[in-house]
Amino acid sequence: MSIDLIDAQVSSTGQFEILSKYEINRLSSESRGSQYQTFRNCSLAVLNSGGFMDDGKELLETFANFDISVVPTERSIKLQLKNAPASAFVDGKIISGIAEHLFAVLRDIIYVNSEITGSKLHDLTSSQGITDAVFHIMRNAGTFDRVRTPRLVVCWGGHSILSEEYDYTKQVGYELALRHLDICTGCGPGAMKGPMKGATIGHAKQRDRHGQYLGVTEPGIIAAEAPNAIVNQLVILPDIEKRLEAFVRTGHGIVVFPGGAGTAEEIIYLLGILLHEENKDQPFPVIFTGPPSATEYFVRIDEFIASTLGKEARSRYQIIIDNPQEVARQMSVGIQEVKSFRKATDDAYYFNWKLKVANEFQQPFIPTHESMLNLALHKSQEPYLLAANLRRAFSGVVSGNVKNEGIRMVEEYGPYELRGDSSIMRSIDIMLESFVKQQRMKLPGKEYVPCYKVISK
Amino acid sequence: MSIDLIDAQVSSTGQFEILSKYEINRLSSESRGSQYQTFRNCSLAVLNSGGFMDDGKELLETFANFDISVVPTERSIKLQLKNAPASAFVDGKIISGIAEHLFAVLRDIIYVNSEITGSKLHDLTSSQGITDAVFHIMRNAGTFDRVRTPRLVVCWGGHSILSEEYDYTKQVGYELALRHLDICTGCGPGAMKGPMKGATIGHAKQRDRHGQYLGVTEPGIIAAEAPNAIVNQLVILPDIEKRLEAFVRTGHGIVVFPGGAGTAEEIIYLLGILLHEENKDQPFPVIFTGPPSATEYFVRIDEFIASTLGKEARSRYQIIIDNPQEVARQMSVGIQEVKSFRKATDDAYYFNWKLKVANEFQQPFIPTHESMLNLALHKSQEPYLLAANLRRAFSGVVSGNVKNEGIRMVEEYGPYELRGDSSIMRSIDIMLESFVKQQRMKLPGKEYVPCYKVISK
Amino acid sequence: MSIDLIDAQVSSTGQFEILSKYEINRLSSESRGSQYQTFRNCSLAVLNSGGFMDDGKELLETFANFDISVVPTERSIKLQLKNAPASAFVDGKIISGIAEHLFAVLRDIIYVNSEITGSKLHDLTSSQGITDAVFHIMRNAGTFDRVRTPRLVVCWGGHSILSEEYDYTKQVGYELALRHLDICTGCGPGAMKGPMKGATIGHAKQRDRHGQYLGVTEPGIIAAEAPNAIVNQLVILPDIEKRLEAFVRTGHGIVVFPGGAGTAEEIIYLLGILLHEENKDQPFPVIFTGPPSATEYFVRIDEFIASTLGKEARSRYQIIIDNPQEVARQMSVGIQEVKSFRKATDDAYYFNWKLKVANEFQQPFIPTHESMLNLALHKSQEPYLLAANLRRAFSGVVSGNVKNEGIRMVEEYGPYELRGDSSIMRSIDIMLESFVKQQRMKLPGKEYVPCYKVISK
Amino acid sequence: MSIDLIDAQVSSTGQFEILSKYEINRLSSESRGSQYQTFRNCSLAVLNSGGFMDDGKELLETFANFDISVVPTERSIKLQLKNAPASAFVDGKIISGIAEHLFAVLRDIIYVNSEITGSKLHDLTSSQGITDAVFHIMRNAGTFDRVRTPRLVVCWGGHSILSEEYDYTKQVGYELALRHLDICTGCGPGAMKGPMKGATIGHAKQRDRHGQYLGVTEPGIIAAEAPNAIVNQLVILPDIEKRLEAFVRTGHGIVVFPGGAGTAEEIIYLLGILLHEENKDQPFPVIFTGPPSATEYFVRIDEFIASTLGKEARSRYQIIIDNPQEVARQMSVGIQEVKSFRKATDDAYYFNWKLKVANEFQQPFIPTHESMLNLALHKSQEPYLLAANLRRAFSGVVSGNVKNEGIRMVEEYGPYELRGDSSIMRSIDIMLESFVKQQRMKLPGKEYVPCYKVISK
Repeated sequence: MSIDLIDAQVSSTGQFEILSKYEINRLSSESRGSQYQTFRNCSLAVLNSGGFMDDGKELLETFANFDISVVPTERSIKLQLKNAPASAFVDGKIISGIAEHLFAVLRDIIYVNSEITGSKLHDLTSSQGITDAVFHIMRNAGTFDRVRTPRLVVCWGGHSILSEEYDYTKQVGYELALRHLDICTGCGPGAMKGPMKGATIGHAKQRDRHGQYLGVTEPGIIAAEAPNAIVNQLVILPDIEKRLEAFVRTGHGIVVFPGGAGTAEEIIYLLGILLHEENKDQPFPVIFTGPPSATEYFVRIDEFIASTLGKEARSRYQIIIDNPQEVARQMSVGIQEVKSFRKATDDAYYFNWKLKVANEFQQPFIPTHESMLNLALHKSQEPYLLAANLRRAFSGVVSGNVKNEGIRMVEEYGPYELRGDSSIMRSIDIMLESFVKQQRMKLPGKEYVPCYKVISK
Repeated sequence: MSIDLIDAQVSSTGQFEILSKYEINRLSSESRGSQYQTFRNCSLAVLNSGGFMDDGKELLETFANFDISVVPTERSIKLQLKNAPASAFVDGKIISGIAEHLFAVLRDIIYVNSEITGSKLHDLTSSQGITDAVFHIMRNAGTFDRVRTPRLVVCWGGHSILSEEYDYTKQVGYELALRHLDICTGCGPGAMKGPMKGATIGHAKQRDRHGQYLGVTEPGIIAAEAPNAIVNQLVILPDIEKRLEAFVRTGHGIVVFPGGAGTAEEIIYLLGILLHEENKDQPFPVIFTGPPSATEYFVRIDEFIASTLGKEARSRYQIIIDNPQEVARQMSVGIQEVKSFRKATDDAYYFNWKLKVANEFQQPFIPTHESMLNLALHKSQEPYLLAANLRRAFSGVVSGNVKNEGIRMVEEYGPYELRGDSSIMRSIDIMLESFVKQQRMKLPGKEYVPCYKVISK
Repeated sequence: MSIDLIDAQVSSTGQFEILSKYEINRLSSESRGSQYQTFRNCSLAVLNSGGFMDDGKELLETFANFDISVVPTERSIKLQLKNAPASAFVDGKIISGIAEHLFAVLRDIIYVNSEITGSKLHDLTSSQGITDAVFHIMRNAGTFDRVRTPRLVVCWGGHSILSEEYDYTKQVGYELALRHLDICTGCGPGAMKGPMKGATIGHAKQRDRHGQYLGVTEPGIIAAEAPNAIVNQLVILPDIEKRLEAFVRTGHGIVVFPGGAGTAEEIIYLLGILLHEENKDQPFPVIFTGPPSATEYFVRIDEFIASTLGKEARSRYQIIIDNPQEVARQMSVGIQEVKSFRKATDDAYYFNWKLKVANEFQQPFIPTHESMLNLALHKSQEPYLLAANLRRAFSGVVSGNVKNEGIRMVEEYGPYELRGDSSIMRSIDIMLESFVKQQRMKLPGKEYVPCYKVISK
Repeated sequence: MSIDLIDAQVSSTGQFEILSKYEINRLSSESRGSQYQTFRNCSLAVLNSGGFMDDGKELLETFANFDISVVPTERSIKLQLKNAPASAFVDGKIISGIAEHLFAVLRDIIYVNSEITGSKLHDLTSSQGITDAVFHIMRNAGTFDRVRTPRLVVCWGGHSILSEEYDYTKQVGYELALRHLDICTGCGPGAMKGPMKGATIGHAKQRDRHGQYLGVTEPGIIAAEAPNAIVNQLVILPDIEKRLEAFVRTGHGIVVFPGGAGTAEEIIYLLGILLHEENKDQPFPVIFTGPPSATEYFVRIDEFIASTLGKEARSRYQIIIDNPQEVARQMSVGIQEVKSFRKATDDAYYFNWKLKVANEFQQPFIPTHESMLNLALHKSQEPYLLAANLRRAFSGVVSGNVKNEGIRMVEEYGPYELRGDSSIMRSIDIMLESFVKQQRMKLPGKEYVPCYKVISK
């Protein structure tokens, strides 16, 4: 199949419509600077979602000659595209939603870099400074503007799931929307697209014309998991940790569909936060759900949580199998409690300021043989700290299994070594093996060769 | 499977919110009057479309105990439902879109009957009086309010089509919406639902928040072809002829997907009107389209038209196979011409006043052995009059094939007799036989036994 | 001063934009029919208010050659004006507000006549029929559309008042608007214009962009009291009695400024209604107010009420002298009670259905020597019936004093004779004489020659 | 008269509703910093305009105990007021428009200081840097949001003018608004308030609900010329020069009413800019107007311009006496040309980027004996530079006549000495003397003692 390419100029919209000369110059010079590659790749990801049934699997390499640049005009800017995917255009005109996503990329990669994360105003080593940065990025993206009442449900889960599971996520999205709830996901296909598709029908039936379909992503993942067509607000956070914080501070409840190790990592992150002493009284509805085929997945997760983080962790979520209506009903009830709590504590509806996110969950973790070896995987620490370390361990495992860099490291230096309580080590083993059996971990070879090994204390 | 039933009261919306005592009394007494059965059945049809994947096939008999009544309140009315399908409700509250459809039924069955068709103000024997009635019903339903520019595409086609064809209708709807066009259909599944589903995604991508999804139906058909979830404006015309006139006067172009004899009837109706001397200069884009599987269907139709109505009729449509983008592109171009024409002639965008619809197309035709025998099926009349008579003949054939009343007549008195030019008779034979071969006509027995026979002149 | 005249066509707006052929024909023929003179005169009154500081005093005779007609267009109508006052136009284009008023005239004189008052649907002899007619006229004029919460204050008072008093009405309007209340008056200058002018500033300061400035008038009075510039909803009721009913059913409270005998008539009407047994529990804030110069006026009114209608009548109003803030504060409190009452009784905010308006207050009264002589002006009847008769007596006095027809009658046949309790007769004498002394009654001669005489029983 | 005082908290609106912890801290600390006095005084000025007929003459001293502070809340801020003028409140609640003005003060004094003028991003020595700063301040104030088409007329003139002249400014505002034009003034009474009052009526008549009433002021003048009630957008620029630039870049045309020396200064500034070579082809409608009483004033100005800046300067304005309609008509025509020009050159409607404002007009001028003596008042320079210097000379004269600092300087060191061409010097003399005779310069003593003297070259 040959790919149609197109050259085009795209006029600015939204906050880029009315610019000063100073801003025009800055945007146009910074877009050619150190962030260029990220800017270009994210733009391409966004342009690539234009097909009717986009699956995000097409590779960036197909568009090796793609180029994007910021062109100054008399009073604003345009984006000049070269060799862009023709599927983003209709009769030569770019699709509005894709144009919006393109300018979201410009905003979050170039503007945010110079005004927020690259600015000296925000102290990105302090917990408060990081939270403020997340807040500024989200506000700048306009995500707070629609929030009149708590109604945003974050949906997590795998991007490559069974067709039966995909249909199930659509039904859950449909039932949530019938109850006037909105959807936030991490963009991409699978469990990230299904709930939005279902919600579109649900909102249409309820004449809910202003449904929010919030996509929250980060530069490293957007190419593989491009925002689907329905996302009507796209935000690109600078890294995984800020993206996770954005999820838990803007969402009013979380639904988890089956996924792989990445989904497990998200679950551990979430529970780690909810286990913090200061978050004890925070209502925060969390539901694990899927069709019957997902039972095994959640049983394993549940066992793992019980054996590592303990009973209290278990009390922060429900598992509901094969009942989309019940999921939506419970979520609706849970979010009513969130609303009452926010009202009582005079906290904002649009951002959960009161949620304690400890610094351990905010600082980027870069998995190396050394950092992995040094993880404190034992029970003589507060559960929330154990969760923070487990989250890092999973991050490393995911990386060693599927990310280029991690795979290369493991090939060169052998498996990561993890040191810790043997019971914890065994629990990890059991859970990941079950994922492999369920075919929820994409692995390069046929047989699962663990990318880590346990060193007893 | 047991069916969940529910009793509920539904509060009034829209034009029924602010009523006088006089109106309250009238609505509540007339709803119990001669129109009750129609009102009840249409209401049930509407309530029955609440499931996630409604297929309209469920029978009214399932809800034999369903009842609806108008209850006066202090300043308005409520609808009291008994034994209503639970699928129309979410946690005990009716879905907004379904509530809207319910009040559309009340409006079009009860109110319209007393104010328009039952009123002495409108002379329903004159052509102008019928057109005015159609106009008043459409305006009263609010269908003109959104029309800022011509953009409404009527989609016709069968309600039971191949899965491949259904997907094709979605793609056409998607491509039309990407070009900022809206969809009008006759309600129901198949070719009536597909374009709306596709358009929902297209409009969402183009951030076209106010897409019109107009459903135009009539009491005799609404039960079998209930309005799907996406219809955001529902109008129920009093009979088939007014419904057809509503299509051609409010739509700015027409796309025809494959269907059965009913679709053929619609095509002949449309061409009959466009062939009228006074409509010669009217631009009116008409496109027959489908995937490769539909080729045969349109070839047969095209041959039939050529041999009966002649070359000129053929010039009023295009046939495009397997190219949704081209369909949308051509329709977009055609509608631009409609816009220019309306502007030049100072005609309204929301209603095609200038289109001549001859009285022969407006008066209801009731097929009986006598009326069928008396049809003038010969070429020594103006083509548009031949089309009017062919339209009636098809109406009779459809009735004799699939409608209860028609089938009973044929069983009792034998096939309808048609008299006419032998070439015309043969053309009918050939076309209908091809429909049977393509399995586009649902027939009770296995073998096609024609319900008519030809008597040579 | 020569008057600039202009010929122009005015395009239709609002409900006249989208018409059927039937409606176009009807409007254009009925506008030339029996209602033509009323239609023409009201149109002229409306056009005449275009000057910057309109005072309504200019006479209709100035525009003896003015003509208006309804011209059919392809899909709607235009108004063709001949010799119209140029002040209604800016560089040849009609001022939007005046165009709106023109179409309000068309709507209320022509359309309402054929659809409501001239239709057989409404029984205008019954109390409910009249109330329904008032409701239909008001709803058709769109006056209910803005009513989200009770906030409409009716302001009554004279059209020719002292400059000090005019300024006072502005201040009251300003203070009402600062409390988010809207204004309804009878149109015209003086106490009808002042509150609206003041409210414009008050609403602007409170950023209350959708303030309602409702003008309620009738054909006999609109020429003398043309709607001022600020009226953004104009309704013309068919007669005085329906106009009064419109005031008390749509207003949520009433402020009375000083006026003449006409204002006294309105007060007696209002109290007569509030005295009805069925209205006892209805909260209905009524405040008489003015600057110090108005004290005498209200003292006399108060005494008259006390001596004729009794103590209970007195309890239905407050008198507040020289304190605009207190007036607005009390009105605001009173309207809160109205809101609670409507909520508790589930009555509408936009129309006071529960208020009993007895048929005696609804039927038009035409003063003649005979009808005046037959008025029952004694205390052996329920106070509300005495009020109804007193209202009629005042109507006759006003007519005998200032209306052409009444003056001619009195000149020809001598003063009206009134028969009744002597105490009531004396009270009338005292009050009207005080009005003369205060120069609140415009009389043709220098000395007050009463147009009636008392015949003791 | 005793003054009512009130203590209150005012909740944040607009851009201050959703703040980060970082911003909350910064606002609250900076409001207590170096800008506190300015912040407090401007806030007081704004609060003081609450009376029904505010005249801005009341002195700040009356409210010596007034205090304002920024109080952090859970997710935003409040303003804590102590001993504030009660007239800004209605029944204890602040008037919305005044609350908006209060937050405009916070925005422009505190926020702008830290983000724009106090930030290192903007180079305030370069011409482009200053223009960018003006742009950022105006955009941040939201003044561009309403600009769909050029329609903003700047009105200049004195704040203390004859009653006849004040009425004239109202009529001009009324006629401008009838032609769908908006008003921008420098805030305060007189010629700054009249056009807005008139426009309110004009916009109301044209149903122009979104009229812009833009007040552009600066900290040194806001106390004396507080924003009147009708201003619905208030911007406080940091100094006189940026304020003047804001006028000429956002306004689409300028009307000048009679005033004093200050108005003359504005005229010279404007002509100086329009005389610049690069502005030659810019359409920019300028009209001097007033009732007959203003004739003398404009004759003198016109003569002065002719004798100093020459014929070309004269071609950039029209003088229209006693004809509000003609003023509005000409302005409307002129602004149409502006629109065509902007369209043709692809310049913005909301900001005149193309207008050259030379650095000489942007740098603040502080009048001292030395700076005055060094002004180059001769004709051997380009006219636009002479205008720049004349503008400065007038600034000094105004200061020496009426500003505290200037008066003290002159008392101490004697009159300013000006050196220059004798013809220019004489022209200045003649013009200023005529202002004194017309009583357009408020002077402390009875007789005009010039605060400058001419030193021949």
